[in-house]
Amino acid sequence: MKKPLAGIIMGSDSDLPVMKEAAKVLEDFGVEYEITIVSAHRTLERMFKYAKEAEQRGIDVIIAGAGGAAHLPGMVAAISSLPVIGVPVKTSSLNGLDSLLSIVQMPAGVPVATVAINNAKNAGILAAEILGIKYPEIREKIIEFKEKMRKEVEEKAKDLENIGYEEYLGRRQNA
Amino acid sequence: MKKPLAGIIMGSDSDLPVMKEAAKVLEDFGVEYEITIVSAHRTLERMFKYAKEAEQRGIDVIIAGAGGAAHLPGMVAAISSLPVIGVPVKTSSLNGLDSLLSIVQMPAGVPVATVAINNAKNAGILAAEILGIKYPEIREKIIEFKEKMRKEVEEKAKDLENIGYEEYLGRRQNA
Amino acid sequence: MKKPLAGIIMGSDSDLPVMKEAAKVLEDFGVEYEITIVSAHRTLERMFKYAKEAEQRGIDVIIAGAGGAAHLPGMVAAISSLPVIGVPVKTSSLNGLDSLLSIVQMPAGVPVATVAINNAKNAGILAAEILGIKYPEIREKIIEFKEKMRKEVEEKAKDLENIGYEEYLGRRQNA
Amino acid sequence: MKKPLAGIIMGSDSDLPVMKEAAKVLEDFGVEYEITIVSAHRTLERMFKYAKEAEQRGIDVIIAGAGGAAHLPGMVAAISSLPVIGVPVKTSSLNGLDSLLSIVQMPAGVPVATVAINNAKNAGILAAEILGIKYPEIREKIIEFKEKMRKEVEEKAKDLENIGYEEYLGRRQNA
Amino acid sequence: MKKPLAGIIMGSDSDLPVMKEAAKVLEDFGVEYEITIVSAHRTLERMFKYAKEAEQRGIDVIIAGAGGAAHLPGMVAAISSLPVIGVPVKTSSLNGLDSLLSIVQMPAGVPVATVAINNAKNAGILAAEILGIKYPEIREKIIEFKEKMRKEVEEKAKDLENIGYEEYLGRRQNA
Amino acid sequence: MKKPLAGIIMGSDSDLPVMKEAAKVLEDFGVEYEITIVSAHRTLERMFKYAKEAEQRGIDVIIAGAGGAAHLPGMVAAISSLPVIGVPVKTSSLNGLDSLLSIVQMPAGVPVATVAINNAKNAGILAAEILGIKYPEIREKIIEFKEKMRKEVEEKAKDLENIGYEEYLGRRQNA
Amino acid sequence: MKKPLAGIIMGSDSDLPVMKEAAKVLEDFGVEYEITIVSAHRTLERMFKYAKEAEQRGIDVIIAGAGGAAHLPGMVAAISSLPVIGVPVKTSSLNGLDSLLSIVQMPAGVPVATVAINNAKNAGILAAEILGIKYPEIREKIIEFKEKMRKEVEEKAKDLENIGYEEYLGRRQNA
Amino acid sequence: MKKPLAGIIMGSDSDLPVMKEAAKVLEDFGVEYEITIVSAHRTLERMFKYAKEAEQRGIDVIIAGAGGAAHLPGMVAAISSLPVIGVPVKTSSLNGLDSLLSIVQMPAGVPVATVAINNAKNAGILAAEILGIKYPEIREKIIEFKEKMRKEVEEKAKDLENIGYEEYLGRRQNA
Repeated sequence: MKKPLAGIIMGSDSDLPVMKEAAKVLEDFGVEYEITIVSAHRTLERMFKYAKEAEQRGIDVIIAGAGGAAHLPGMVAAISSLPVIGVPVKTSSLNGLDSLLSIVQMPAGVPVATVAINNAKNAGILAAEILGIKYPEIREKIIEFKEKMRKEVEEKAKDLENIGYEEYLGRRQNA
Repeated sequence: MKKPLAGIIMGSDSDLPVMKEAAKVLEDFGVEYEITIVSAHRTLERMFKYAKEAEQRGIDVIIAGAGGAAHLPGMVAAISSLPVIGVPVKTSSLNGLDSLLSIVQMPAGVPVATVAINNAKNAGILAAEILGIKYPEIREKIIEFKEKMRKEVEEKAKDLENIGYEEYLGRRQNA
Repeated sequence: MKKPLAGIIMGSDSDLPVMKEAAKVLEDFGVEYEITIVSAHRTLERMFKYAKEAEQRGIDVIIAGAGGAAHLPGMVAAISSLPVIGVPVKTSSLNGLDSLLSIVQMPAGVPVATVAINNAKNAGILAAEILGIKYPEIREKIIEFKEKMRKEVEEKAKDLENIGYEEYLGRRQNA
Repeated sequence: MKKPLAGIIMGSDSDLPVMKEAAKVLEDFGVEYEITIVSAHRTLERMFKYAKEAEQRGIDVIIAGAGGAAHLPGMVAAISSLPVIGVPVKTSSLNGLDSLLSIVQMPAGVPVATVAINNAKNAGILAAEILGIKYPEIREKIIEFKEKMRKEVEEKAKDLENIGYEEYLGRRQNA
Repeated sequence: MKKPLAGIIMGSDSDLPVMKEAAKVLEDFGVEYEITIVSAHRTLERMFKYAKEAEQRGIDVIIAGAGGAAHLPGMVAAISSLPVIGVPVKTSSLNGLDSLLSIVQMPAGVPVATVAINNAKNAGILAAEILGIKYPEIREKIIEFKEKMRKEVEEKAKDLENIGYEEYLGRRQNA
Repeated sequence: MKKPLAGIIMGSDSDLPVMKEAAKVLEDFGVEYEITIVSAHRTLERMFKYAKEAEQRGIDVIIAGAGGAAHLPGMVAAISSLPVIGVPVKTSSLNGLDSLLSIVQMPAGVPVATVAINNAKNAGILAAEILGIKYPEIREKIIEFKEKMRKEVEEKAKDLENIGYEEYLGRRQNA
Repeated sequence: MKKPLAGIIMGSDSDLPVMKEAAKVLEDFGVEYEITIVSAHRTLERMFKYAKEAEQRGIDVIIAGAGGAAHLPGMVAAISSLPVIGVPVKTSSLNGLDSLLSIVQMPAGVPVATVAINNAKNAGILAAEILGIKYPEIREKIIEFKEKMRKEVEEKAKDLENIGYEEYLGRRQNA
Repeated sequence: MKKPLAGIIMGSDSDLPVMKEAAKVLEDFGVEYEITIVSAHRTLERMFKYAKEAEQRGIDVIIAGAGGAAHLPGMVAAISSLPVIGVPVKTSSLNGLDSLLSIVQMPAGVPVATVAINNAKNAGILAAEILGIKYPEIREKIIEFKEKMRKEVEEKAKDLENIGYEEYLGRRQNA
C-alpha cells in the first residue's frame, strides 16, 4: 500500500456520515488517504502526536471535521505546518453556524482553510487541488472532474429543455 | 506571598484591557490570583503545561479569555479537571458572537462556564462564588458585594426620584 | 440519605427530558443532588425561597435550565451567593439562541456559568468540577471520567482504522 | 400632584438617556407618571415590592427598560397583573438583539408588550394608547399626535418636492 | 350577544392554527372578541376600514398576527389609536425571525406591542391585561389565571420531588 | 410558438421543485417563457453565453434561482443589461440566509432584484409586473390577479366570521 | 418638463442622504424621475393615493426606501401593479437586517424587488434596467455604464500592477 | 524577476488596505507573488482570462478577496483547478457576515478555502502552507514563523508576569 497523502480526522465518530464524503472523493481521484478519529477535547495528546507527526509520515494535507465549539481544525493547524482544511459539521441547535464560526474565525497566524457546513466532499476536492500543485496526475483528475460536472449539468439542461419541467420532475420522482 | 487560588489567562495581550477586570474584582475580594498570557494556537505546549500543572500548584479555578475562534478556554477545560470560566472577547467583525459560540458550545464531556461577551468582571465574581464553596471568607465578600450593589442602586433610585431625570442626567454629564 | 450538594431546577417540566442528563451525570459521579421545578415567572415566591435557602440547606452549586426568555438562572444568581450554572434549553422557533442570550448576557455583578444549548450533561460535569475543589473524591471521579472518554475515543479510532469507514458505519446502523 | 397612571422603571441609571424619551412623550400627552430605577438582579426585593404595589397605588401600566440578559420587564410581568411594556436597551456587543430576545420571547402565560430596540418613545405612546381605552382625554391626545405627525411629513414632502433634494439636504446641514 | 372588546385579525387563514390560541384564552377569561382575516397586502381597503372603524364599534384592543414581512400589525397601528398587539407567526425559512423584526422594529410614533414568536396565547393574555385596566372583572380573571399557573407548577414540582425524574417522565409518556 | 419574454434559469435541477412556481405563474398570466439549468460554477461558459444572448433572443427579464453561495443571479446581472430577478433557494444548514445574502448584497453597479427565500412565485409575478410596463395585456393580468387574491381573502374572511374558527379549522382538516 | 418615468419615495427625510443616490444615477442615465416623502405609517392616505395614481401619471417603476420595520415598499407593491424596488435603509441597532427582512420576505402574491442594504444606487440602476425593456435609449445608457465600470476597474488594475500596492495606497491617501 | 507562485486578486481597489496584508506576509516568507484587481461583476472577461491562464503562467495558488455578495473567489474556483483561498472583506452594514457566507457556502464540486473576515494575513500564510508541500524552503519559513510567534507570546507573558497588568498596560499606552 502506498503512503497516504491526505489525512482525514474528525472529533467524534458521529461526524463520520458527513466526513466519509471526503474519503469517497479522494478515492475517486485516486488519492491515498487515511481516516481516523482524533478529538481535541477528549484525546489531546493523541491530537498533539497526530499533528506533530503527520508531516514526517508524508502527509501533505489534513482534513479535520468537527461540530459545535469546533476546536480540532484550529488546534491541528496550530501544531502542524501543513495546510489544514476545516469542515464545520452541522449541529442540532445552531445548524452549524457555531461550528463554522469556531473554525473559520481563526486569529492571525494560524489559518484554517474552511469549506461549507457539512460539505466534506468539497474538503476532499480542495485537498486534491492542493495536492495537484505537486502531483500533476491529481490535477488531471480535477480537470476531468470539472469537465464531468459540466457535462452532467448540460445533459440535465437539455433534458429539461426537451421534456419540460412537469415531465422532468415526474421522472425524478419515479427514479 | 500566598499561593494564588485563581489563574487568569488570555490568548493575547490585546485581551488584557478586557481581562484585567477579572483581576480587579479578585483583588477587591482579597483573592490571590495569577495573571499571564497563554495562547492555545501559538504556545500550545505552554498551554498544555499550564493546564496540567495548575491544579498541583494549588489553583482552584481558571479564568480564560479569548476572541474569534476562541479555543483557549475549551482546550484548558479539556486538559484540566478544574472548573474553567470562559470570557468571550469582543471582536471587530462579528462583535464577539464568534467568540461566544466558540466558547459556550462545547461538546458533551468538556464544559466551559461561559460568561457574557467582554464581561471579565463577571468571570472574576463567578470565580469567587466557586471559591466561596470552599473558603467561607470569600463567600462573605460576595454577600457584602451584593449588598453594596443593592445599596448603590437604591441610592441612585432615591436620587432620581427626588431630583427628576433632567437634573439627574445633567449632574451625570458634569461628573 | 445524605444531604444534596447540587440543586437542579428548571422552569417547566417540559425541560425535564433535557435536564435529566445533569441528574444522570451527577449520579454517575456519586454526587448527591435534588431536582425540582421552580419557575421564575409562575412561582416567583417559590423561586425566591429556593434561592435564599439553598445555601443554608448545604447546597454548594445550583444548575438551572430554562428556555426562551430564560430568566430563571439569572434570577437565582441574583438572589444566591452560590455559583449558578445555566442551561439554555432549545426552543422551537429560535433553536435556543434566545435561551442562550437570555442566560449568558448577564450584566456586570451577577454572573451565570452558561453551558451549551441543551447540554445539561455538561452542566452536571461543571457542577462536579466546582464541587471537586472542595471534595477530592469528586475530583477523582472527573479525572476517571476524562480518562474513560479518552479511552472510548481511542478504541473507536482503532476500530475505524482497522475496518474502514464503510464497515464501521455499517456496524453502527446494525447496532 | 395627581397620582401617576404610568410607572417607568429601568434596570440601571445607564438606561436613563434612552428611557427618558418615554417620560417626555407622556409629559407631552399630559399623562402623570413616575420614573425610578429598579434592578431585577441587584434589588430583587425592591422589584418585588414595586411590582406587587404598583396596582394598589393606582398605576395602570408599567414601562420597563433593560439591556443584555434583560429580565426586569418579564419579572415585573410575572408579579403584576398590569400590562407591562418592555424596552430592549441597545448593548455594546450584540446591539440589543440579546435585550430584544430576552424581553420578547416570554413563555406562555406571562406576556411582555415589547417595542423596538431603544425605542422608549414608542413605549410611552403605547402606554398612552393603553390608558386611552380608559381615559378618553388621553386618546384625544394620541389622535392629535398622529395628526401632527402626518402634517409634519406632508410639509417636509412638499418642501422636498418644491426645492429638490440637493437644496433640501443643504438646508438640513445648515440647520 | 355582547359587543366584542377585542378584535383578532390575521393576514391569512394559514395563521389561524396559531392565532386561535388568542381566541381561546379570551374565551377562558370571558372576554367578548371577534376574529377574522384581514390582509394588509391583499385586502388593503378592508384593512383600512377595519382599523378605522374598530374603535367606533367599541373594540378596545386589536391583536394582529402575520408572518414573514409581516406588515399587518404595524399598518393597523398606524391607522388606529387603539393599542395593537402583534404576533409574529413562525415562517418556514427564517423561523419567524423575519416576522419578529418586521413587527417589533416599528419607527418612533407607531408602536406595536409585540409578543413572542407564535405565542398568540400571550397576545390574548396581554389583551386581557390591557382590558383589565378598565374592566375590573377581567383583571380578576388574570389574577386567578396567575394563581392557577402557580398551583399547577407547584403540584408538578411536588410530584417530581416525590417520585423522581424517571417515574415522572415515564408517566408523561404514558399519558 | 411565440418567442419567450422571460427566461427562468437555476443552478441545479434540485432547485426545480422551487423554481417551477415561477413558470406556473407565468403560464397563468399567459407570458411566454423558457426554463433551463445554467450553473455559474459548473457551466460558466454556458452561463456567459446565456446571459450574453438572452437580450438578442428577445428575452426582457431573467429569473435566476440558486442556493448557498448563490452566484448565478449576480453573475448573470453582471453580464446582461436586462433586469435580473434572484430567488434565494432555501438550504439545509442555514435555511437560505446564505442564499439571500449572496444574492441581495450585490455591490454598487450590479443590482439583482431579490425576492423572498424560496418564493419563486413572487419572482414570476415580479417578472410579469416588469413586462407589464411594455405589454399592457400582461398588466391587465396582474390587475386581475390582485383582484382575485382580494376576493379569495374576503370570502375566507366571511366564512371564518360566519362559522367560527373551530368549524373553519375542522373543514380545512377534512379538505 | 417631461413626465417622470420613475418615482422615488422614502418613509422619512432622514432616508434622503441614502436615497438621493437613486436620483443621481437616474440623472446620469437621463431618466426623468420624481422624488418625495411618503410614510406608510404616518401618511397612510397619502401613500394609498400615491400608489394608486402613480401608474395613471405615467410612472413605470417605483423605488421605495425605508428602515426598521420597513413597510413602505411592500404596501406600495400591494396597491400598485407597477414593479416596486425596495431599498432597505441601514438602522442604528440591527444594521439594516431588520429593514432587509421586512422588505424582502414578502408573502406570495406581492413581490418587492429588493436591493442591498443602503444601496439606493443599485435601485436606480435596476429601475433603468426595467425601463430599458421599453425604452431602448435607456438600455443604451446601461450598456455604456457597464462599459465605463469595466474600463475604470481595468485602469485601476493597470495602475496597481505598474506601481505596486504601497505607492498605490500612498497616492490614494493623498488624493 | 522570478515567476510568481501566488496570485492575489480583489474585486475592488477599496479592498486593497485589507488585501495588502496577504502580500506582506508572502514577502516576509520570500514567496514571489503578483497582485491586481479583478472584478467578477465588472470585468467578467478579465476574470475569466485570469483564472484560465493563472495555472499556465506558473501560479500555484490564488488568493481572492471580496465583500458583500462576494462572488470573485467562487467564480475563480469554478474556472481554475488551482486551490483558491477566499478572504471575506468586512462590509459596512452586515460586518462581513454576508461576505463570509457568500464565499464559504460553496456548492459541492467547487470549494473555496475560506479564512476569517478581513484576515488576509492568514490567507497569505495558508498560501505559503500550500506552497510548502511543494517547496521545502517555504515550509521552512512557516516553521520559523510559528517559532517566532511562540517566542513573542512567551516574552510578553514573561513581561506581564514580572511587571503586573497595570504597568504592562501603562507601557503599552506610552508605546
